[in-house]
Amino acid sequence: MEPLDYLAQERSMASFDVEEMKVVWAGSRHAYELSDRCSRLVASDPVFRKDNRTMLSRKELFKDTLRKTAHAVKRTVELNLSEEESLTLWSYVDQPAYANLHWGMFIPAIEGQGTEEQKQKWLPMAYKMQIIGCYAQTELGHGSNVQGLETTATFDPETDEFVIHSPTLTSSKWWPGGLGKVSTHAVVYARLITNGQDHGVQGFIVQLRSLDDHSPLPGITVGDIGMKFGSGAYNSMDNGVLRFDHVRIPRNQMLMRVSQVTREGKYVQSDVPRQLLYGTMVSVRQIIVSESSIALSRAVCIATRYSAVRRQFGSQNGGPETQVINYKTQQSRLFPLLASAYAFRFAGEWLQWLYTDVTKRLQANDFSTLPEVHACTAGLKSITTSATADAIEECRKLCGGHGYLSCSGLPELFAVYIPNCTYEGDNIVLLLQVARILMKTVSQLVSGKKPLGTTAYLGRVEHLMQCHCEVQSAEDWLKPSVILEAFEARAARMSVACAKTLSGFSNLEEGFAEISSDLVEAAVAHCQLIIVSKFIEKLQQEIPGKGVKTQLENLCNVYALSLLRKHLGDFVSTGCITPEQGALANEQLRLLYSQVRPNAVALVDAFNHTDHYLGSVLGRYDGNVYQKLYDEAWKSPLNDTDVPDGYHEYIRPFLKQHFHTARL
Amino acid sequence: MEPLDYLAQERSMASFDVEEMKVVWAGSRHAYELSDRCSRLVASDPVFRKDNRTMLSRKELFKDTLRKTAHAVKRTVELNLSEEESLTLWSYVDQPAYANLHWGMFIPAIEGQGTEEQKQKWLPMAYKMQIIGCYAQTELGHGSNVQGLETTATFDPETDEFVIHSPTLTSSKWWPGGLGKVSTHAVVYARLITNGQDHGVQGFIVQLRSLDDHSPLPGITVGDIGMKFGSGAYNSMDNGVLRFDHVRIPRNQMLMRVSQVTREGKYVQSDVPRQLLYGTMVSVRQIIVSESSIALSRAVCIATRYSAVRRQFGSQNGGPETQVINYKTQQSRLFPLLASAYAFRFAGEWLQWLYTDVTKRLQANDFSTLPEVHACTAGLKSITTSATADAIEECRKLCGGHGYLSCSGLPELFAVYIPNCTYEGDNIVLLLQVARILMKTVSQLVSGKKPLGTTAYLGRVEHLMQCHCEVQSAEDWLKPSVILEAFEARAARMSVACAKTLSGFSNLEEGFAEISSDLVEAAVAHCQLIIVSKFIEKLQQEIPGKGVKTQLENLCNVYALSLLRKHLGDFVSTGCITPEQGALANEQLRLLYSQVRPNAVALVDAFNHTDHYLGSVLGRYDGNVYQKLYDEAWKSPLNDTDVPDGYHEYIRPFLKQHFHTARL
Repeated sequence: MEPLDYLAQERSMASFDVEEMKVVWAGSRHAYELSDRCSRLVASDPVFRKDNRTMLSRKELFKDTLRKTAHAVKRTVELNLSEEESLTLWSYVDQPAYANLHWGMFIPAIEGQGTEEQKQKWLPMAYKMQIIGCYAQTELGHGSNVQGLETTATFDPETDEFVIHSPTLTSSKWWPGGLGKVSTHAVVYARLITNGQDHGVQGFIVQLRSLDDHSPLPGITVGDIGMKFGSGAYNSMDNGVLRFDHVRIPRNQMLMRVSQVTREGKYVQSDVPRQLLYGTMVSVRQIIVSESSIALSRAVCIATRYSAVRRQFGSQNGGPETQVINYKTQQSRLFPLLASAYAFRFAGEWLQWLYTDVTKRLQANDFSTLPEVHACTAGLKSITTSATADAIEECRKLCGGHGYLSCSGLPELFAVYIPNCTYEGDNIVLLLQVARILMKTVSQLVSGKKPLGTTAYLGRVEHLMQCHCEVQSAEDWLKPSVILEAFEARAARMSVACAKTLSGFSNLEEGFAEISSDLVEAAVAHCQLIIVSKFIEKLQQEIPGKGVKTQLENLCNVYALSLLRKHLGDFVSTGCITPEQGALANEQLRLLYSQVRPNAVALVDAFNHTDHYLGSVLGRYDGNVYQKLYDEAWKSPLNDTDVPDGYHEYIRPFLKQHFHTARL
Repeated sequence: MEPLDYLAQERSMASFDVEEMKVVWAGSRHAYELSDRCSRLVASDPVFRKDNRTMLSRKELFKDTLRKTAHAVKRTVELNLSEEESLTLWSYVDQPAYANLHWGMFIPAIEGQGTEEQKQKWLPMAYKMQIIGCYAQTELGHGSNVQGLETTATFDPETDEFVIHSPTLTSSKWWPGGLGKVSTHAVVYARLITNGQDHGVQGFIVQLRSLDDHSPLPGITVGDIGMKFGSGAYNSMDNGVLRFDHVRIPRNQMLMRVSQVTREGKYVQSDVPRQLLYGTMVSVRQIIVSESSIALSRAVCIATRYSAVRRQFGSQNGGPETQVINYKTQQSRLFPLLASAYAFRFAGEWLQWLYTDVTKRLQANDFSTLPEVHACTAGLKSITTSATADAIEECRKLCGGHGYLSCSGLPELFAVYIPNCTYEGDNIVLLLQVARILMKTVSQLVSGKKPLGTTAYLGRVEHLMQCHCEVQSAEDWLKPSVILEAFEARAARMSVACAKTLSGFSNLEEGFAEISSDLVEAAVAHCQLIIVSKFIEKLQQEIPGKGVKTQLENLCNVYALSLLRKHLGDFVSTGCITPEQGALANEQLRLLYSQVRPNAVALVDAFNHTDHYLGSVLGRYDGNVYQKLYDEAWKSPLNDTDVPDGYHEYIRPFLKQHFHTARL
């Protein structure tokens, strides 16, 4: 007998080939099969169980994480998994752990900034996890301003050593993942001081713990920084604090690919271009954009399925009530997020290509595209992570009261996701960087310099400053060229307006500070244009599968028009569209929602998330929500006994009292 | 020696009398002294300690809550506190507990819906807490749609009893606070069935647990529903699940003030107007609005103080870096929230007056203002709680990485606050109710019916549809009349536009469903107008204290103009203001931020929050943030030992291995 599927009717309404959409979502058939296989491997393995995670104490959760990490390594060996498979499997374990930093930051730092000799010495041990490392950059007093770090590495020519020291409280290393309880080593960023001269921040490999008994080495104070947002979530990670009291390391533990300190203590810079180091930053941010679409897709999948299961109001003649997904208020909040998941997915895909491209160029000493690529990844990192964080919470609200239960999966998804808005560049700081490049681009237009890549549209600024949107009917808003021009005109006009205001300041930096909020908004407009245009470009490619392209076209239009609705003030006040055209866009949006509605459940099925990965009673594939919510309740620790601990001391005296209490 | 105050310089910059502002914030000198005294009582009592709350397991947290509740009652008796003092003290304990529902819902339900006889029987026991009760309305399948509840209460004339039964899984009571492990009794809402006829939902007093040993009575299945959002937060509450298997209660346990069932099973309605029952709803929602300003003030206080402590970038010649509160991007996010805290405070004050007024009218059988009062409290409940939830998270982001630590206080504040957006009326459902009243008011204008109270401005709709904003300089935006008219015109035009669109539908309900998103936005515009206008009215009262009024004027303008900026699309596309006037508003906003800046810390000091109540290392009064963050870290459970539990099983094998692992 087939298992019951409460969402079968929803699935039967879809007018496209879901299997083909899964491949489009994954990026390729290979990627689809890889993720499908690995997610099932994880889901079927009892060690990777996570439904009890929010009930564990911090210590239990941490030990559980160590166990899962060790088990993942074991499975990798047993199944002889490739690197790609191993990474994918680990991503489905879905629990932040020290291994992320060891593989994702410690090793790449040595690979990118170490000399050949250093790589030969350290990497084999790191690959085998005979040493475990982290990336100790952020300090208690310094995050975004890396150049302001206070930890010092002073060269002592007498012993040929660096003395690593934390001169102040605020110089304590703070936040590095894996630092608190696990890492034996760290790449520590510190100010290099030779002969009393400060050469700025450099990386050093420092051993923190004994490889014999794991105790901290002399001069090292290290520990966990405490509880973080939510239950479960990032509390599986030992984000750490670290202080140095004149810790000595050999000179050859400074990462010396780009600059060196000689035996005599002379500071030398090699001819390796410093720009090469930016490659890593671009890489990490590009991955964050890809992951934003995954996180968003999980939230949207939960909210969409549950909205199809949940019924409230609207019963007629004793019939069933209306599915909440049929309410326009629900659709107008949910479907733009569904569309965003796809939009961010394709933006991430394109960024990945861009990263490959820039890597090739860097290797050929072509740095021409680097500033633009840098701005682009910074900007997309910022707007996709901010939008995703907000969207996860919006999806929780769309699930009504039950979304507040941990077993909905949404609270933990939110708690574990939001640091993305802060780490690897605070989102506002990043947008200001984008704005700087936009202002530079605009100012160079006069001299005839042709803008490149995603800023190319600014080369048509004269046209964009005066063009009129030609929409006369709601249907006109379905033309990609119309949408694109509206977004280009809006972005261009906002940038030009900022540039004009700036030109009124005698001190440019003061002007920049004064109008920074407007600059942030101009940067947002620019980044939203990039995402819209990459979605449109995607649709110009061949897309196989019955009805798949039509669905993506609808989603692209929903994404663009819902942004237009949200930022109507930008579009109308810059004269890019008239209020009437705004109203037509709104009308078109409602029509689009009606077209998305019957395909909504299938569109989230296309993400191919297992129930294990979703970790949500509300988002279950089979829609059997109420029975499972009910079953789940009894697992509450408070239900271990009928009468709760504390009853005799703190409740019974009230019930049995003979004196009169005042009102509480 | 005076204790160190890192924020002393900030405080010295204030240009107003902070002590007087404290009184304004509290509402009266009496209210100020009351809250000051009670908050200090709680802060100085070690039993009410809460800095370890997020580290407790669920069972420990729950027991801690029982203990605090019992202690609060004990202190109430020992100190012979008045009801007002007792409630205020309890609010500063700041931990959701069953007592909230016992006093806030169970007792008022009996007081409001019980007959004199019922009140005499049940209330004395409840006041003494010899019985403890909860409010069992919401079910697994029904929240907003109360009329759709499924639990049945069938009258059995043979035994003169009601049979309370849960006929389906979805009829399980679900969510009631205090139900899971503590309540001995509940007011249960169930469909009354007599002689096979369904008379809709009524309230019944049902005993759930034995008063001897606290075990659930026969036919009762009761328990906790499990973990909820966050650590600490609402996990101190035993939100419960409850199923009935044909549980019999005497007939006189139906709450019979408004309708009765006779001995023969006849259903009778008394002449007590049903509208009286709405009074409770209005009361609860009005309290929620007041509490929104408190929750928001806590978040804003933390973010403001920390923004003055935190420095990042902008060091010149080796001097200190710039305080992040000096960045315009920070100000443009933070100061509107600071202004909102004050705006919501005064809106809550006014609502309290409105509630008193309507209560008097109801007692005199004057129901004329009830619909408007109902819409008003529903609307303000919706927009203040949504704005506050978003603002708490925004404040967390404004604290950068450190805001993600539990000890910042913001994660738990967020987690414990957000249910306000769902309970006592889902915020979107409430806005649609407001929109209905707006549409009705607009449609009745033709017949010459004069709108009342907060909808009175719609009586000037002809003027508002065609008026032109007269702003010609940034300074013009400081005139209250200009701001008020812009907000009135916007709200009126959005309502009228919706009414026009609706008139194009042959089926009004279909039209309502179709444009519900626009209706929600019209309702938001209306509610924002109410808050702006109540703030302006407040400023027309006499306000003593040096500089206090000027500060409030600045905040009022910041509130209004930042809303205008946020909803620029509304204002410009309805023609209420021109894009140029929008730009002038923006310019004025920046000037206002500069005036708020030197007073910011003093403006949050005026909330008079103790460090205990704030529960935030980042928001400490003395600004000694870094030292306390550092000290706090060592309390992490993971720091109990240098070498973490799990090291030998799961880490050491890697470090000591002799085989080659694949890459994870």
